Amino acid sequence: MFFCFDRSKNHEPFHVQLYNYIKNEIQLGNLIAGEKLPSIRFLAHDLNVSKQVIHSVYQQLLAEGYVESKPRSGIFILPFENLKFISDPSPINHDEEVESPNISIDFFYSSLDPSKFPLRAWRKCMNRALENINNMTSYGEKQGELHLRKQISHYVRKSRGINCTSDQIFIFGGTQQSLQFITRLLDLASTMVAIENPGYEEARAAFVQSQCEICDIPLDEDGISVSHLKQTLTKAVYITASHQFPMGMVLPIKKRLELLEWAKRNQSYIIEDDYDSEFRHIGKPIPPLKSLDNANRVIYCGTFSKSFSPSIRCSYVILPEDLVKHGIQHLKSYSQGASLIIQDALAHFMEEGYFEKHLRRMKTTYQKKHKVLLKAIENYLYPFVEVIGEKAGLHVLLYLKHIKAEDLIIEAEKLGVRIYFPNVHWSLQKPESIIMLGFGALSEHQIESGIQLLSSIINHGAVPKGDGK
Amino acid sequence: MFFCFDRSKNHEPFHVQLYNYIKNEIQLGNLIAGEKLPSIRFLAHDLNVSKQVIHSVYQQLLAEGYVESKPRSGIFILPFENLKFISDPSPINHDEEVESPNISIDFFYSSLDPSKFPLRAWRKCMNRALENINNMTSYGEKQGELHLRKQISHYVRKSRGINCTSDQIFIFGGTQQSLQFITRLLDLASTMVAIENPGYEEARAAFVQSQCEICDIPLDEDGISVSHLKQTLTKAVYITASHQFPMGMVLPIKKRLELLEWAKRNQSYIIEDDYDSEFRHIGKPIPPLKSLDNANRVIYCGTFSKSFSPSIRCSYVILPEDLVKHGIQHLKSYSQGASLIIQDALAHFMEEGYFEKHLRRMKTTYQKKHKVLLKAIENYLYPFVEVIGEKAGLHVLLYLKHIKAEDLIIEAEKLGVRIYFPNVHWSLQKPESIIMLGFGALSEHQIESGIQLLSSIINHGAVPKGDGK
Repeated sequence: MFFCFDRSKNHEPFHVQLYNYIKNEIQLGNLIAGEKLPSIRFLAHDLNVSKQVIHSVYQQLLAEGYVESKPRSGIFILPFENLKFISDPSPINHDEEVESPNISIDFFYSSLDPSKFPLRAWRKCMNRALENINNMTSYGEKQGELHLRKQISHYVRKSRGINCTSDQIFIFGGTQQSLQFITRLLDLASTMVAIENPGYEEARAAFVQSQCEICDIPLDEDGISVSHLKQTLTKAVYITASHQFPMGMVLPIKKRLELLEWAKRNQSYIIEDDYDSEFRHIGKPIPPLKSLDNANRVIYCGTFSKSFSPSIRCSYVILPEDLVKHGIQHLKSYSQGASLIIQDALAHFMEEGYFEKHLRRMKTTYQKKHKVLLKAIENYLYPFVEVIGEKAGLHVLLYLKHIKAEDLIIEAEKLGVRIYFPNVHWSLQKPESIIMLGFGALSEHQIESGIQLLSSIINHGAVPKGDGK
Repeated sequence: MFFCFDRSKNHEPFHVQLYNYIKNEIQLGNLIAGEKLPSIRFLAHDLNVSKQVIHSVYQQLLAEGYVESKPRSGIFILPFENLKFISDPSPINHDEEVESPNISIDFFYSSLDPSKFPLRAWRKCMNRALENINNMTSYGEKQGELHLRKQISHYVRKSRGINCTSDQIFIFGGTQQSLQFITRLLDLASTMVAIENPGYEEARAAFVQSQCEICDIPLDEDGISVSHLKQTLTKAVYITASHQFPMGMVLPIKKRLELLEWAKRNQSYIIEDDYDSEFRHIGKPIPPLKSLDNANRVIYCGTFSKSFSPSIRCSYVILPEDLVKHGIQHLKSYSQGASLIIQDALAHFMEEGYFEKHLRRMKTTYQKKHKVLLKAIENYLYPFVEVIGEKAGLHVLLYLKHIKAEDLIIEAEKLGVRIYFPNVHWSLQKPESIIMLGFGALSEHQIESGIQLLSSIINHGAVPKGDGK
């Protein structure tokens, strides 16, 4: 075997050069199966380097399986085929910047107001969390940090009337993760899960990912049709009772009690997603089903995405007491999805009272924006539209009387206004004339301008108004 | 109707008192269905408050469905049953601190070294990310932030020989999320997925959650048995090729090429989890399968949990080019699982060169610890144990020759040393005599003391050594 290796002038270390040389020779077929590599002693002497260098190169080739070591006889090239698979990654990179249209007013329903974010307090809490370096180097508790769970249990008791211990609280990295945990816990795969139709598309997706069969329950004017639900054999219903998503109605107490009674009789579970109940613009927040549940039938899902920040990816589930042990077992093979450092920062943020203060501030802020939005709609868009839903949350739906939503969306985009088509939330018979306006992230001025721009489309006939048929 | 409401002396605002009073009267059955509430004007006058106050209370009761409003006749109590459901949450909280045993040396395999964490650089990057307040108030891109994806594409090209664009990179909040995305993308629910046995338990769990059928493939001495794999009809195999988890071997090049050839012929996919390839203590890192893939059959999973921090919950998937469009569509109904603020901080951290520097430092650190661990094992535990696996990663497995793992674990715990039983990673025929020692988080001194303490158990007969049968 002849070794034509020359140290090249490039800046790679010698052992890398040698390693690459031998590997290439094997790949090119110049060194073939069964051939013996020169002994370490010989090659070290020949190339005038230490034996250690040759040893490390051979070890690497051994580790990658190019060669094998036979005791007391040496190191041999291994046979293998399919060398065509080996491609040399060429240093190209065809990344291109994608130009996005110039949108100045975006009625996206999931964004929050950046100007009101309590940056200083949050930064303080983040830096405080960073003081405990273990927060960066470990996974943390699978159930979520106790410190945060305690804060959440205080919060839900005070603000939502839910009486639970921190043991009952399980932290996740978002509502979809919360729901996937619940499907495992209740063993819902391949079984029927009832959901509202229209309802929250991402919840549907989470159940679909867990292979649940979806049973769509229509809405009455006051929320989920309990009579429809009663005709099903489902063991679980997912519901946004305090502020139906996307329609916005509040489930009346009569139906709440009917639901609880149904769940108790059937030994079914109510999965209550209380995603934005903090922001009710008139009156007090609506008490959640969980606060009425004395039969351990309600599993409560909360999130910080609306009340604080969607960027922290932190949600929680409150289990009935009798499911807690079972719940902990079901965490075993799963990683905690919420960042430990963020959980700790959030716990400080709540403990120091910043969260409550922030909520108070945002309630006022969103209330004002909501008012401005409704007024602008009244001033500029009536009688061409109708507002759908309760006066709560961070979005409204508009029913367009003579216009297709799709057309309005396209025309609005040209004027720099982005509005949304909520029809993904309908499972069948998708509406053609409903648009969704989120107002959380927009200033009052932007809200008003945006609506004015929409009215210019509607009023000036840029969109064919049809004949209402 | 007679209203016996008296303003109480407690600190609740008047409208809350009145609201609670009416609700309680309804719940107690003192106000019954069909009864009319006093008019707003009358009650305001009677209670000597503004009409607005009464109006807001009635609105709240309306919203919650306790009462209904009949145009031009007034507000009436609605009928409902099942009042027994309504329970008054009493302000108890039976949280108790759970005492954990006093563990001073924890060989947990997923923790990292807190003393080497680049805190100052990370804090700087976090605070820089916080300067862009949109990072806190929006969800960010579903595929992950472009800024971070670009950094990852540079990194994998340079360090792993993978040539891909940022378009091919998809960010998730941990490997389980990455795998769930892949199962959706490849539509693997109800189909067979091959995994290594023993193999990474959390990967198995992610496939199970997505209702895949698991096909266990045994390991040969050099990694997954490709001949067994070839006998299956699976369309996807999950593999830890560069450092098999938990056994630690490296898949030789011959098998890598066989695997690629198999995938190409069968139009199957190889899901390569390259979880800790950064830390190889001898030689260069092993090139991933993805770097050899010129037929678009390898889906690559990377994570920052070992290389930087498990607490940031950030992982990524690299798709073959021809799956990218499909991949983006599959993100539609799912939220981004990785925190936007952390993604941005991580992108800065990589861009500024901190990540590379940190990796270099950790390679040396872990190499030293690994050496100390092996030496301590040799000094104190030979000949009672055997080390299993390649010299890479942040854990080793020990085969205990005459001792049951369970017994050693119990005795070690009494001395403040926690060691782990890896048998969750075996699907069947779980080994009784293997323990897992992670050393990432321990100091060299702790490693040595820990092994000494284990040896005191083994040598002093605290554990029955049996007769080797």
